[in-house]
Amino acid sequence: MSAITIYGNRESGNCWKGKWVADLLGVANEWVEIDIFKGESRTPDFLKLNPAGQVPVAVLADGRTLAQSNAIMLHLAEGSRLVPTDSYARAKMYEWLFWEQYNHEPSVAVRRAELKFRGKTEETVNPALKDRGEAALARMELQLKETPYLVGDALSLADVACVAYTRVAHEGGFDLAKFPAVKAWVARVERDLNLASAHEAA
Amino acid sequence: MSAITIYGNRESGNCWKGKWVADLLGVANEWVEIDIFKGESRTPDFLKLNPAGQVPVAVLADGRTLAQSNAIMLHLAEGSRLVPTDSYARAKMYEWLFWEQYNHEPSVAVRRAELKFRGKTEETVNPALKDRGEAALARMELQLKETPYLVGDALSLADVACVAYTRVAHEGGFDLAKFPAVKAWVARVERDLNLASAHEAA
Repeated sequence: MSAITIYGNRESGNCWKGKWVADLLGVANEWVEIDIFKGESRTPDFLKLNPAGQVPVAVLADGRTLAQSNAIMLHLAEGSRLVPTDSYARAKMYEWLFWEQYNHEPSVAVRRAELKFRGKTEETVNPALKDRGEAALARMELQLKETPYLVGDALSLADVACVAYTRVAHEGGFDLAKFPAVKAWVARVERDLNLASAHEAA
Repeated sequence: MSAITIYGNRESGNCWKGKWVADLLGVANEWVEIDIFKGESRTPDFLKLNPAGQVPVAVLADGRTLAQSNAIMLHLAEGSRLVPTDSYARAKMYEWLFWEQYNHEPSVAVRRAELKFRGKTEETVNPALKDRGEAALARMELQLKETPYLVGDALSLADVACVAYTRVAHEGGFDLAKFPAVKAWVARVERDLNLASAHEAA
């Protein structure tokens, strides 16, 4: 895979996924910081990269663009050890990727964004986000009590996708002490990805 | 691919995706109707099939389970004409699949569900859903003015995913007359999938 440029925001877990995969697989990559809080993902130039007005966007070596964090990962990791070769295991990886974007991110990441960036407090934030986020973490706990990674015994894109906001869930008011298998898995995946602990640093 | 059983609800576009793909590719399939409005997706037996408590769930011939509508499609369609062989086109298909679940379904499908099943009216439904749904339809219009299908010249899973709720968008108060390329594409994809027009039937 030739070099890519990632247009991302450093506070967005979604944006890091592609960079982590590129770094792990030795794909040369460059990062262009987009200040989403200043509207830089809605400018005419940015909308040419992604008409949906969202980060991340990857620009490939030939200039073609690709949006959606999990699609960028799938493209970068095609044929690599991060995608299971067994057909059913690969399907379960897809299940986790879609689940992450539908259930986990809109609760865990959104509650974090509300508290950290949008001036909400524990009192004023939408109360449903806590229950939904804890349900998502409980779903992961159920799996991670059985297997060290979300899909069996090896790191896959499912773990990269789900760790992005789970490792900073405490910033959204979630206590991983309630989910010990998840907590141990976060440390395991951070080590696999050569990341400093987001929790210790907090 | 051997036979599958789909646990789904007939009012859910997400549930139809896997059945349409199975029918198109000649995969024998059985449908078990789950009345989500009576809580049948939250019973202990159902949660054994999918701990996330969501339809659809596919049960494969060997008894193993798979959730998430787009993951079920990807599994069924692996190696078929519904998945582009070109690597970049395949990545764009993934982009649409994730975009559909993150942007389109939570606006177009949710507004439909609010109006059709949850007793909301044009006056009481969350006003943000209309803007978000129209933005999603406008994003599709931009592409479909350029190409007959979301990824180039041929039907792919991107079209199956996005047509599921677009074809019933009028039930959510969206007027496809504003999006003529989308409207023509709905008819094209319905024909490809051998479906009666959902709009004419309405």
